[in-house]
Amino acid sequence: MTMTHAVHELVLTRVFDAPPALVWKAWTEPKHLMQWFVPKPWSLVECDIDLRAGGVFRTVMQSPEGEKFPNPGVFLEVVPLKKLVFTDAYVNAWTPSAKPFMTAITTFEPQGSKTKYTAKALHWTQTDREAHEKMGFHEGWGTAADQLAALLAQM
Amino acid sequence: MTMTHAVHELVLTRVFDAPPALVWKAWTEPKHLMQWFVPKPWSLVECDIDLRAGGVFRTVMQSPEGEKFPNPGVFLEVVPLKKLVFTDAYVNAWTPSAKPFMTAITTFEPQGSKTKYTAKALHWTQTDREAHEKMGFHEGWGTAADQLAALLAQM
Repeated sequence: MTMTHAVHELVLTRVFDAPPALVWKAWTEPKHLMQWFVPKPWSLVECDIDLRAGGVFRTVMQSPEGEKFPNPGVFLEVVPLKKLVFTDAYVNAWTPSAKPFMTAITTFEPQGSKTKYTAKALHWTQTDREAHEKMGFHEGWGTAADQLAALLAQM
Repeated sequence: MTMTHAVHELVLTRVFDAPPALVWKAWTEPKHLMQWFVPKPWSLVECDIDLRAGGVFRTVMQSPEGEKFPNPGVFLEVVPLKKLVFTDAYVNAWTPSAKPFMTAITTFEPQGSKTKYTAKALHWTQTDREAHEKMGFHEGWGTAADQLAALLAQM
């Protein structure tokens, strides 16, 4: 039996001039993630990372006006230096969130001394994918990736 | 910051006259699961179990009239002899399903030589919880638990 499922995907790819171990470190340690994860002048003011399948991944973004936006979620899969999967469908293992919106799959592949970074956002509905695109997926994740590149150059 | 999330829960508990290792075996090996998982005269005609976080848990139920109903899903957490968590929110790791309906948390606790079995179904919405209850959660999972008890007595 074959079933086809749309994944309602948005994708960003980027090659960073740093090895996967460094990109992984910048992604998974709160003190680093807080410097690049949110496009400025927005900022990340809280960040909890319990780096294991079922562990919490929770961030709080702050707008330039000081309003805070919590983003609770959990990791579904953690493959050190290679892959991170997380979703907002749960606020912890395994409490359903108010609205399962997306699942993010990020991969870190070596390319010589560099890293090919791929970030995919999968949505349960086409409507949610379109909403995410309108919320600025490409600009937002793209600007964040630029900020990550700048941070990696200093690490 | 505190957030409250409703889990929209349905719960079944049962004490089986068998140790957790045997209940676990009856739950996690397809040849056994196929004998009790679906209330007769319905039957389970296919069963794929990849027993690890992110592994597929897919069953196909068949009505007395011969109509087949596939139930794709994945395991989110597997703690041998103690706990199984699975959801229909994904059809595999990590393809979103057409509709995230529920997450099931089953636990197996030793009570002397017996096992306390708890099966919880958590839903993203109150509407889905009510729909699941009307679909016959208590009768269905209850009858399945009776069938499991009968099988355990023969194992």
